[in-house]
Amino acid sequence: MIKILNNLRGTITPRLDLPFGKLSIEPGAALAMENDTILAIAPPETLRQQYPGAETIDGQNCWAMPGFVDPHTHPVFYKTREEEFEMRIAGKSYEEIAAAGGGIRNSVRALRQASFDELVALAYRRMRIFTEYGTTAIEAKSGYGLSLEDELKSLRVIKKLSALLPLTVVPTFLGAHEVPDEYRDRRDKYVDLLVEEMIPRVAEEKLAVFCDVFCEKNVFTVAQSERILLAARDHGLVPKLHADELHPTGGAELAAKVRAISADHLLKVSDRGIAAMKDAGVAPVLLPGTAFFLAKTEYAPARKMLAAGLPVALATDFNPGSSMIQNMQLILTLAALQMKMTPEEVIAGATLNAARAIALEKELGSLEAGKKADVILLDIPGYKYLPYHYGVNHVKMVIRHGQVVHRAGE
Amino acid sequence: MIKILNNLRGTITPRLDLPFGKLSIEPGAALAMENDTILAIAPPETLRQQYPGAETIDGQNCWAMPGFVDPHTHPVFYKTREEEFEMRIAGKSYEEIAAAGGGIRNSVRALRQASFDELVALAYRRMRIFTEYGTTAIEAKSGYGLSLEDELKSLRVIKKLSALLPLTVVPTFLGAHEVPDEYRDRRDKYVDLLVEEMIPRVAEEKLAVFCDVFCEKNVFTVAQSERILLAARDHGLVPKLHADELHPTGGAELAAKVRAISADHLLKVSDRGIAAMKDAGVAPVLLPGTAFFLAKTEYAPARKMLAAGLPVALATDFNPGSSMIQNMQLILTLAALQMKMTPEEVIAGATLNAARAIALEKELGSLEAGKKADVILLDIPGYKYLPYHYGVNHVKMVIRHGQVVHRAGE
Repeated sequence: MIKILNNLRGTITPRLDLPFGKLSIEPGAALAMENDTILAIAPPETLRQQYPGAETIDGQNCWAMPGFVDPHTHPVFYKTREEEFEMRIAGKSYEEIAAAGGGIRNSVRALRQASFDELVALAYRRMRIFTEYGTTAIEAKSGYGLSLEDELKSLRVIKKLSALLPLTVVPTFLGAHEVPDEYRDRRDKYVDLLVEEMIPRVAEEKLAVFCDVFCEKNVFTVAQSERILLAARDHGLVPKLHADELHPTGGAELAAKVRAISADHLLKVSDRGIAAMKDAGVAPVLLPGTAFFLAKTEYAPARKMLAAGLPVALATDFNPGSSMIQNMQLILTLAALQMKMTPEEVIAGATLNAARAIALEKELGSLEAGKKADVILLDIPGYKYLPYHYGVNHVKMVIRHGQVVHRAGE
Repeated sequence: MIKILNNLRGTITPRLDLPFGKLSIEPGAALAMENDTILAIAPPETLRQQYPGAETIDGQNCWAMPGFVDPHTHPVFYKTREEEFEMRIAGKSYEEIAAAGGGIRNSVRALRQASFDELVALAYRRMRIFTEYGTTAIEAKSGYGLSLEDELKSLRVIKKLSALLPLTVVPTFLGAHEVPDEYRDRRDKYVDLLVEEMIPRVAEEKLAVFCDVFCEKNVFTVAQSERILLAARDHGLVPKLHADELHPTGGAELAAKVRAISADHLLKVSDRGIAAMKDAGVAPVLLPGTAFFLAKTEYAPARKMLAAGLPVALATDFNPGSSMIQNMQLILTLAALQMKMTPEEVIAGATLNAARAIALEKELGSLEAGKKADVILLDIPGYKYLPYHYGVNHVKMVIRHGQVVHRAGE
């Protein structure tokens, strides 16, 4: 079945053959799809002649862009944490709240009580919102279970939702998100558990593509993180890393050493870390929503990483403690305002570079023939407008794998 | 015609008899309306007995809150200014862009070319978005005309939109938004024009309720602002003031002196200014979206003003240069994160205190018997959740003056 998306203002997209932060703009173009795949981007007359029997979809005078790819989310949790949000406003820091048993451990206690079905229902409601705001693919981490059973439960929830939702969901095992309460005085024993039981089991059941670690002061040391990620690699899971977020621990350097596909956060990344990432081909995933939500004045040094030639990617970090948001459009505004990324760079960062950070750049992240037809229609006059008009949803239609999966209400 | 809004989680509202930053929460309550007015808030059984023939509206298990009141917007402009947004990202300051002929003067050149009908069509599209995000009343300023003819045109556009949209629109004359190009070397002559021709004409045609001045270094001095606002008062227009935004000029003190209803922005307000506002009953209107959009690290000292007992109000400052947003929900998050206002304070600030800042607190801003039935339904578990889950639209339904004027799409 061939469909032509016509009556567009045109197409806006990064491309695999362009530099990392550049876009191709085709005013007046239309887009042909066959089943779940993009056939061609060309003037509407050309496509009409080439595919005379094709069905048409009215592009409503919108610009077409690739669906957003969100390469760092934590969507499987039980309860929300607005109480901690209020505590932070009253002056407590995220780290103080965590030290007092709040933070990730708060979410762990709640998730362990919850059934698989409860978690599916809750995560389903939350993850539908990604689609409404134009996201067609996410990476989704476990990490609020922190026991073999509860991590498997979380990853199975992710697998289930991947089948239920019009969303590509790439699973990441994040058993090393925090040290659970029962291992606080024997932290290395938890690393043993991760390495000896959890990682082999997750790999065996094929429940994850990536393995991530929260490498941070008072969480997992660089040495522990290395041990975990090397074990993951041995079992076929590709390393990822929460690196250099709150303190400069050398996370980026470790990411390079273990050949991680991405290093994420990077507020405190060193120049040496940036150079190491470049040499090893590690993608930086920046999460300005998290810095915003934690009311930081410092953001990751995006311009340094861009200057080093790295394919800077953007993500929401959707999670109940430090970034309660599914909307990539606001992340673009934050990246522009706070990290001084240009409109071109933020759009490329939220699409093709984001796909690179989860190894899906050959299938997703740009409007190119042969790629999956994940297309969003934006009611904007041009690409610079997208980060500029902030806090509102510009998405009029979402097409995923060739099917219209969302239309904005009136 | 009596209608009962039932199947609610309950009601969340400030009240005229409560302290400025406090809310009344009534779990399980329903709300009865007669025509455009609230009759009662009570348990659903009570209302059903009291009004047995009433029509019902399904509250969809949402919380009901008063519609947002946005007491500071500039919605009548011709072109958007995403080019300047990109320049700011590249390192130019807002003031540098303005000094080079950009900024407000850029918008003035564009608006002067535009016809009344073009402006109505453009502003209509932009102002409909207020409704989608739960705003039921706004204050709307002129200020991109800066000539008698073009200011009258702008105010007539506002009047027209007030009739077309499901939105209470309170007009403010802001002829003193900037000194137009043709008066740059004889600035006092422009003040003469404002005082001698524009204000009398605006008042005579009853095109505005308020008169506002951008009192700021390199714009209007305190002495010029005083002269303009006293002339306005003589003609029955109530003073308002853009005060102490970029430099501490003594704007708050002037607002107190001329008995302005509000002083807005206030990033640089002095302690003396706060005390003067308190003594004179001037409402502070804070615009954290503007500080955010200008990538400032400093925000208005909300906690100082709250400690002084002032009814702190919040607004979007919707305008094409320094705050391109209609969504009050994100403004609440910004106020919480950046100005350390509590969830209760931000909700009161965006409803009843905002109504106070435009002298409509007897009609709007809270769910109380006798007030206009401007009610929004929010799909949230409780009021603390509203600023916490940011960047998405929680509004499921908007009722204005007793009529359903918006339902969220599926």
